[in-house]
Amino acid sequence: METIASFGEFALITRLAQGITTHAERTDIALGIGDDCAVLDLGSELLLLATTDSLVEGVHFILDTTTPEQVGRKALAVNLSDIAAMGGIPRYALVSLILPANTSLAVLDGVYAGLGQEAERYTTALVGGNIASAGTQLVIDITLLGTIERGHVLTRSGARPGDVLCVTGTLGASAAGLQTLLQPDHPYAAQALARVRMCHCTPQPRVQEGRVLSRFGPAVVTAMLDISDGLSGDLAHLCACSHVGVRLESVHLPLSPELYAIAQCVLHDPIDWALHGGEDYELLFTVAPEYVQLVVDAVQTATGTPVTSIGIICAASDGMTLVDQEGEAAPLSVKSWDHLR
Amino acid sequence: METIASFGEFALITRLAQGITTHAERTDIALGIGDDCAVLDLGSELLLLATTDSLVEGVHFILDTTTPEQVGRKALAVNLSDIAAMGGIPRYALVSLILPANTSLAVLDGVYAGLGQEAERYTTALVGGNIASAGTQLVIDITLLGTIERGHVLTRSGARPGDVLCVTGTLGASAAGLQTLLQPDHPYAAQALARVRMCHCTPQPRVQEGRVLSRFGPAVVTAMLDISDGLSGDLAHLCACSHVGVRLESVHLPLSPELYAIAQCVLHDPIDWALHGGEDYELLFTVAPEYVQLVVDAVQTATGTPVTSIGIICAASDGMTLVDQEGEAAPLSVKSWDHLR
Repeated sequence: METIASFGEFALITRLAQGITTHAERTDIALGIGDDCAVLDLGSELLLLATTDSLVEGVHFILDTTTPEQVGRKALAVNLSDIAAMGGIPRYALVSLILPANTSLAVLDGVYAGLGQEAERYTTALVGGNIASAGTQLVIDITLLGTIERGHVLTRSGARPGDVLCVTGTLGASAAGLQTLLQPDHPYAAQALARVRMCHCTPQPRVQEGRVLSRFGPAVVTAMLDISDGLSGDLAHLCACSHVGVRLESVHLPLSPELYAIAQCVLHDPIDWALHGGEDYELLFTVAPEYVQLVVDAVQTATGTPVTSIGIICAASDGMTLVDQEGEAAPLSVKSWDHLR
Repeated sequence: METIASFGEFALITRLAQGITTHAERTDIALGIGDDCAVLDLGSELLLLATTDSLVEGVHFILDTTTPEQVGRKALAVNLSDIAAMGGIPRYALVSLILPANTSLAVLDGVYAGLGQEAERYTTALVGGNIASAGTQLVIDITLLGTIERGHVLTRSGARPGDVLCVTGTLGASAAGLQTLLQPDHPYAAQALARVRMCHCTPQPRVQEGRVLSRFGPAVVTAMLDISDGLSGDLAHLCACSHVGVRLESVHLPLSPELYAIAQCVLHDPIDWALHGGEDYELLFTVAPEYVQLVVDAVQTATGTPVTSIGIICAASDGMTLVDQEGEAAPLSVKSWDHLR
């Protein structure tokens, strides 16, 4: 009997997506399944954004190493990041909890406190919810709704050869943070340890940065998504949706000093974490070449968040290339975490 | 340690709701948590409705007695019923699946086929989704979005003393259907068996009926909700939200011949199933007395679904009363299924 575990996550999503009616005839659906959010058109000046994502105990977090408040914050943050990835404003959350019968009230209260704090920070109201009791793993499943001005939606599919590939913040810290949770007994430098764990346990969704980028519109910022699976995996999504290739410059990847410190401590290649680590929740976007400086300056001035150019979009036939520290070009290997295996 | 099971579902929902910021200052939230749907105002002629509900294997269904297609249909139907309960049109669904690793592809395909069929029947597009693997119980968690014309939202809170309490269809069949699944070896009459099982496994959300009712607006149809917990429990919600009491006439409860047949077979009181059974997904609503005939005729003419007057709204101080078959009045006992115990 073929099971979902033997089939694999990405094959499964492709299979299910193929079976879903696309409703190309419906003018109230600007964008269906396949981007960070659906884009829905109810006829007002603002378009509606909708996304859903869940955190599962034992898969995405364990309560030994993460506080209930952090779990609540992160459950909302991963959804906020999807709204940010379209350039939108988050607005309304619906929260569905699946709770093992022995879940303590203290854990539940903590999760809700974290959710509430994160909602407050990002102008999001909890407008609906559901509780069910089942199993042995806590599941927090959130649907987040947002809005965006007509003509300002940034999708995955608009990148063109010659566009410059940019990323906010730094890469790899979340993976390094996870590493320190899995190997807690290593003698890490205290400051680096605190920093990478914070990146892993309470990622900062780039909502404000996404807003600045969406103001330029898709003629300038031609494509965007957030990095959840890892730079290589999400870059592959961007290239597939835009029908382009990319030439990524390893030497330009933005790595933090804390990442180097942790990598040195456990003898891991920091570039590997930056390329394939996942859960950084930074924005990855492409910019028409003549506007790069303008866009980079605008984001940095408005938000204080650094933006780095890390590569160039090329034709699909040129594929995905990684230029390493020595200037050697080779096909970029794409690795993404499969949650079903 | 106090756990969610010891605390109980309804106490828990009240506790969590109290901790949630209500955002009374936000004009874009017409109605937050506490009704069948949230009502959101993005400035267009149509208001947005949002609801979330999940089906959990072992709690809401077992795959021994329900096909994967039925599970998929019902998972969407319970959400469609919440949109119907506000008088809205369903539009967009986001589907989140929590799958045990050993879930067969056949089960998953069946669930999706059922979802897709039900979506087609009710003009609903699947616009988002998520898959995670965890635990040993299949969970289907759906957020459904709909729309409704401004000024036509029917809430739980508008019933006034003197209004007539009405219900669509018949009551108790879903509970009878569940009974036949739990005691499969009884010699049930074949036709009655098929009918009550269908009511339980593939309930028909009253979307079209809700649309007819919302056209009258809240000055005529003063309050509405759908019966998911059971008539007594959901009537208690309506009375609490509207600050009213009710006098319910047992003799007027609409019971189907099939319900009587199953009840007789297992020696169960059919009135008990009708009052407390749950999962009927009929619409329960109150009508200003001068409009009752008009409203009842309109629904029956447009949809073919019978509507029955089953009681009268009274002052909150008069409480909730049940008049039994012999004309004796006594306080209505309220029983609702607690999913956490």
